[in-house]
Amino acid sequence: ASPFLYKMAIPDKLNLDSLSLVERDQQTKRENAITDASPMRLRMEKFVKEKQKEIVQALEAVDGSKFQVDEWQRKEGGGGITCVLQDGNVFEKAGVGISVVYGSLPKAGIMKMRANHKNLVDGEKIPDSLEFFAAGLSLIVHPKNPMAPTVHLNYRYFETAKPDGTSGAWWFGGGSDLTPNYIFGEDAVQFHKSLKDACDRHNKGYYPRFKKWCDEYFYNKHRNESRGIGGIFFDDLDETVQDKENLFAFIKDSLDSFAPTYTAIVNRRKDMPFTEEEKEWQQIRRGRYVEFNLVHDRGTSFGLNTPGARVESILMSLPLTAGWKYMHEPKPDSREAKLVEVLKHPKEWV
Amino acid sequence: ASPFLYKMAIPDKLNLDSLSLVERDQQTKRENAITDASPMRLRMEKFVKEKQKEIVQALEAVDGSKFQVDEWQRKEGGGGITCVLQDGNVFEKAGVGISVVYGSLPKAGIMKMRANHKNLVDGEKIPDSLEFFAAGLSLIVHPKNPMAPTVHLNYRYFETAKPDGTSGAWWFGGGSDLTPNYIFGEDAVQFHKSLKDACDRHNKGYYPRFKKWCDEYFYNKHRNESRGIGGIFFDDLDETVQDKENLFAFIKDSLDSFAPTYTAIVNRRKDMPFTEEEKEWQQIRRGRYVEFNLVHDRGTSFGLNTPGARVESILMSLPLTAGWKYMHEPKPDSREAKLVEVLKHPKEWV
Repeated sequence: ASPFLYKMAIPDKLNLDSLSLVERDQQTKRENAITDASPMRLRMEKFVKEKQKEIVQALEAVDGSKFQVDEWQRKEGGGGITCVLQDGNVFEKAGVGISVVYGSLPKAGIMKMRANHKNLVDGEKIPDSLEFFAAGLSLIVHPKNPMAPTVHLNYRYFETAKPDGTSGAWWFGGGSDLTPNYIFGEDAVQFHKSLKDACDRHNKGYYPRFKKWCDEYFYNKHRNESRGIGGIFFDDLDETVQDKENLFAFIKDSLDSFAPTYTAIVNRRKDMPFTEEEKEWQQIRRGRYVEFNLVHDRGTSFGLNTPGARVESILMSLPLTAGWKYMHEPKPDSREAKLVEVLKHPKEWV
Repeated sequence: ASPFLYKMAIPDKLNLDSLSLVERDQQTKRENAITDASPMRLRMEKFVKEKQKEIVQALEAVDGSKFQVDEWQRKEGGGGITCVLQDGNVFEKAGVGISVVYGSLPKAGIMKMRANHKNLVDGEKIPDSLEFFAAGLSLIVHPKNPMAPTVHLNYRYFETAKPDGTSGAWWFGGGSDLTPNYIFGEDAVQFHKSLKDACDRHNKGYYPRFKKWCDEYFYNKHRNESRGIGGIFFDDLDETVQDKENLFAFIKDSLDSFAPTYTAIVNRRKDMPFTEEEKEWQQIRRGRYVEFNLVHDRGTSFGLNTPGARVESILMSLPLTAGWKYMHEPKPDSREAKLVEVLKHPKEWV
């Protein structure tokens, strides 16, 4: 959002230069509808709110029960909506959350971020703090039936404000990945193909690059195995990759493809018969999921270390039940062993 | 162990200066019985091996079933014995492990450790690596009955070798802490009193200092609550605190007090009736235990980041089952609320 567009959109009632980012945005929202000419902050906020509603409705339709909806505020600026469905008919736990955060990045944080984002600060002098904005949608779904896979998705937009109030650096990040307890080739192919299609519509180079990034990121290195069968993952998508409009269009497309794909997969698996041993295997795999989220995931660790963070919204990703069995090894050639084989050697599914 | 004692104990068959620490110790063990004149490395190794057997037997007597015993080697030097009893009659999971590690500390590790241990390196020049020895006993017991508390204990000895082969810095660390799901004053008092008695026999200042250290260390700061009702915890006990003999005597005394105290507590609780809701509360508390171990515990994080570590021995601490319920809050004035009250405001039990 250039300062020019900004001035066009808001009559000069107040001296905008004296307002913080959150105050400016609140005023814009009071006085104007969000359009394609609005700042990306407000467009992204509007978009993730709409998608959250759509996805919640799609999952409720599969489960037959309702999400609990909690709206919360951050006293430092912004807030979020956390929707959780727990112990449902189909889902053991499903969490769909959005957050919109206005905050201030301390000097140490600026210096860290600057490594990846040269344009974070003009010139050599690093300010003591930098206003930032972050908006995103995160979801995780743990079905009850061990034949139905766990899924995770997160798309986010980050922006800093320069001291003069104009936009500084910005970038998009996100992705989506599938974590089955049992491999169904049909599910893996459908999941990856829908992501590849969304990627290909924007850039043929995205899918191979983001698929590899996903395999590398969602990796339990202390176990020498992937968390699941991957998907796509990316961070720091900024103007060095594509212009903002095209990146936003790509984010929208990727997020749009989620609900139809995942609900199709779950509908195929949710009523399949399973044994007690298969349920136990699911518990062990859930334990590994917890290990990744608490030991390796940067988002979780950032959240847990942020003062004033809403812990229940961060840890809604953890399953309702999980287990750790000492020295558990799947039997050779079993379906469980076939999963582990794929986790140790990620496959190309499409 | 002074170089003088060392030479006394081992006839000069080999030029000791050309041997690594592990080779020296292997030779000593082949040729001599371990006595009070042996190097502390070997005395500590012998001690933790004996205590492991005793504790395993004491827990087997309570449970009525046997531990699985796995001996393992580290290819870099040393190894361990991991004993696990899983899905027993009384214990859901009990792990009692010892490890004896000979390794090499890289320069970055030396510099980090030097902050707390001025005598780690002579002079200003930091060597590229430093041989070290570490021996310890770790245990964790998760009973089935939600009225019986989880317990954790760890005692360890660490020593470095100077480039000329003599002992460099050394220190003891350890402690023990109790994590009940329901508060029984009698258990809390007995547990703390047995630790205080062991401390008081050596130094009246130990218990208050180590009790506070424990409350501060076993703290889930993202939840603003303690992991449990504490016990004692300490690290870096070296010659600035006490001489080596007296510290070893304290470690022995503390470890000796464990089995009689904990088995008495479990025997009082293991057959108490409980409801399904109380079992669910136990699952939620187990989830918090997992959070502490995977997010905050330095030992776990050090272990998981050590190349070649035996992950199953590190993660034997995780419960067989655990759970995460979104926004679970105990009812006001319930027994569950009383536990949380104590976790938020640690008590003086003795």
